[in-house]
Amino acid sequence: MAQYDLIVIGSGPGGYIAAQRAGTLGKKVLLIEKEHYGGVCTNKGCIPTKSLLNSAKTYDHAKNGSFIGVEAKGIAFNLKSAKAHKQDTVETLRGGIEFLMKNANVETVFGEAKALDAHRVEVNGTVYECSYLIIATGSSAFVPPIPGSDLPHVLTSDEILEIESLPSELVVIGGGVIGVEFASFFSMVGVKVTVIEMLDEILPMADAEFGKLARRAMKDVTFNLGCKVEKITEKSVIYTTAKGEQKELAAEKILMSVGRRPNVSGLEALGLKIEKGAVIVDEQMRTSLPTVYAIGDVNGKSLLAHSASRMADVAVSTIFGKGMKMRYDAIPWVVYSDPEIAGCGLTEAQAKERGYEVLVHTAQARQSGRFLAEQGKRAPGMIKVVADKESGVILGVHLLGPYSSEIIWGVAAILEAELRIQDVKEIVFPHPSVGELLKDAVFALDSSL
Amino acid sequence: MAQYDLIVIGSGPGGYIAAQRAGTLGKKVLLIEKEHYGGVCTNKGCIPTKSLLNSAKTYDHAKNGSFIGVEAKGIAFNLKSAKAHKQDTVETLRGGIEFLMKNANVETVFGEAKALDAHRVEVNGTVYECSYLIIATGSSAFVPPIPGSDLPHVLTSDEILEIESLPSELVVIGGGVIGVEFASFFSMVGVKVTVIEMLDEILPMADAEFGKLARRAMKDVTFNLGCKVEKITEKSVIYTTAKGEQKELAAEKILMSVGRRPNVSGLEALGLKIEKGAVIVDEQMRTSLPTVYAIGDVNGKSLLAHSASRMADVAVSTIFGKGMKMRYDAIPWVVYSDPEIAGCGLTEAQAKERGYEVLVHTAQARQSGRFLAEQGKRAPGMIKVVADKESGVILGVHLLGPYSSEIIWGVAAILEAELRIQDVKEIVFPHPSVGELLKDAVFALDSSL
Repeated sequence: MAQYDLIVIGSGPGGYIAAQRAGTLGKKVLLIEKEHYGGVCTNKGCIPTKSLLNSAKTYDHAKNGSFIGVEAKGIAFNLKSAKAHKQDTVETLRGGIEFLMKNANVETVFGEAKALDAHRVEVNGTVYECSYLIIATGSSAFVPPIPGSDLPHVLTSDEILEIESLPSELVVIGGGVIGVEFASFFSMVGVKVTVIEMLDEILPMADAEFGKLARRAMKDVTFNLGCKVEKITEKSVIYTTAKGEQKELAAEKILMSVGRRPNVSGLEALGLKIEKGAVIVDEQMRTSLPTVYAIGDVNGKSLLAHSASRMADVAVSTIFGKGMKMRYDAIPWVVYSDPEIAGCGLTEAQAKERGYEVLVHTAQARQSGRFLAEQGKRAPGMIKVVADKESGVILGVHLLGPYSSEIIWGVAAILEAELRIQDVKEIVFPHPSVGELLKDAVFALDSSL
Repeated sequence: MAQYDLIVIGSGPGGYIAAQRAGTLGKKVLLIEKEHYGGVCTNKGCIPTKSLLNSAKTYDHAKNGSFIGVEAKGIAFNLKSAKAHKQDTVETLRGGIEFLMKNANVETVFGEAKALDAHRVEVNGTVYECSYLIIATGSSAFVPPIPGSDLPHVLTSDEILEIESLPSELVVIGGGVIGVEFASFFSMVGVKVTVIEMLDEILPMADAEFGKLARRAMKDVTFNLGCKVEKITEKSVIYTTAKGEQKELAAEKILMSVGRRPNVSGLEALGLKIEKGAVIVDEQMRTSLPTVYAIGDVNGKSLLAHSASRMADVAVSTIFGKGMKMRYDAIPWVVYSDPEIAGCGLTEAQAKERGYEVLVHTAQARQSGRFLAEQGKRAPGMIKVVADKESGVILGVHLLGPYSSEIIWGVAAILEAELRIQDVKEIVFPHPSVGELLKDAVFALDSSL
């Protein structure tokens, strides 16, 4: 029986980072993975979708590039090549994680983990012992019990990544991040896409203005809001509209993207406190057992890859280091659709709910020279800044437009450092850049010098 | 004779921002512009080049996109359309500045300014009086006295923007930012490009590793380093190599991009202190005359549009507000070539020169999942972080790769807030993003938790 300082179950962006950090600190670490290094993120989530979205964007920008001098009449999208590149990327990244684990002296065992108690985990019939256990088992796509949802043309996000040819029409059930990203991808490559969303706006984590603008920007996608899917047939989706009318929509393929559920199987023997299917943790990722931690999607706190990685830092730091606490207010999120949408910190509504008196400014992206040069006058784009009126501290920034995904980390830095409006005014932004919009917005909030 | 609180000469990114800020503070402001709103940046610099570079990148990415599933055999680059879009962008932005000026109650007069003394400026025969004067007259392309440099096929950056058709070969004299951006543009659209640079590396403001990688990345461009141009003929450039050999290179067009010189004509009567052609200023942009300020290229301190805008804030704040000081250590710079290159803060060499004991880490961009997904395994990309060993304060970050232009502002925020390695570790970067490389690099510098 082996003895480890730490066992980590799951090698996604939570688990592999936890293993790597602890290994680097000189701890004896075992990482258990049931399938491939990288978990859902690397194999079936973040990475493959971003690879395909980049292919589609490159295709779409060139196809619609005559206004900037790019004439591409004979352009075609080859799904097979795009998928091959996606797969190559995934496998390279798996190899990268393997390399990281070796470098950090982390042992890995592949197989289903079954926790016997807080200090013993069984894999492939072998029992491994540890002082600490980190659960990073992630989540799985949730398929709601709608009649017909088990039909073969109803796909989860895992399955839709593997389709062999483009459908003529796709119905996306659920307008969250996953639904919107796939809707964007398929519509860019020529598929007729309809999104059916139960709520009255897509992207519930975003300021509602951004959901609205995103829908307007994705002009080839039809969005049916406030609609409830009643039944799926071999060839259609039957749903009730917000007004109570029943409608039927033809669908060659259907993407079921209504949410994800924590993976807690194999953990039963631990008797962890679980609420709404998720393992309960404190601010340091401790579960109801003192030596057992749970990070990433399995604790249901923030279903984002980078949240999982941050939770890994917090857990490992708590177990073996100086101790950190998890903060949820400075975690950025990104929708890698075209256009991209990103946010970090509080929305205007959230800030008001928390009792802040807020200063708010929304700037149109066409104020930005770079945006205009690259996107043209009619392209949609927006930035919204929310600040605390009393202190001037920036509370949140939301963006829609190109580069949002790579601009937003600076907002996380601003929120982490608790900078005020006056501080942001002193930051020099490169010109021309889309990011400069933040500076314009901040000066609009307060023009004093 | 009119009486103004402030007269600003020049409506580039220094001048128009100064006028707008002062106008917003309720001051009576006159802006004098000899040609078009926006100066070189909007009309002949930042904006038109970024517009054309975006056209070329869109073309090039699609043309070389078969590995990601984009088949574009029939793709063509239409210079006329690209230029028309560029011009449309320029004119829209001029209109935007006009709108800003009206909104801030700034008066504008078009014509050549002649300063009569510190409080009087003549334009088109009318004399305008002011309490304070801000000089924002910018700079012009410098054409060195090389025999043949006055031939019609030798173009400055202003002139090359107006060419009617693509040359078969282009020789770029000078491998600074302007030279490298045009080299990148022309090589992407199929022109055979050679850069001749006198120094032994291109992009002198960058860490030398980045110049080297940039050359390797721009594989269709030939770089001749350590070479001195001796003479230009109707059809060629004659130069001496680093080894002293004389060579001749065919050139249909030649771009002269060896540097820029401050525009000081019209200012003679002021008797300002001038050194190496530039108006001397202090940290608050004050010239040798107490009520006269000089911002932007004309003071020669930092020839970047956003430096000029920042100087505008500093000058207006000093004259009418609380007073700010100019800091040069947190000004980002960007080369919008493909790949993009950006930096902010000190290079390793600069930090050592200043006596810092440094921690340095260079990470390869292919560690980033997004980079790999979008660029593939063989694409060049790099990030280098320099920190002070004693305090852990981040001193500088340099990048080469996609999105560098939009990532770098966050580094300016980090430097402005004087964040340390430990602070940067707490910043949550979105996954997957190229910006995450900074987090990886920072953990590589110090893996403690």
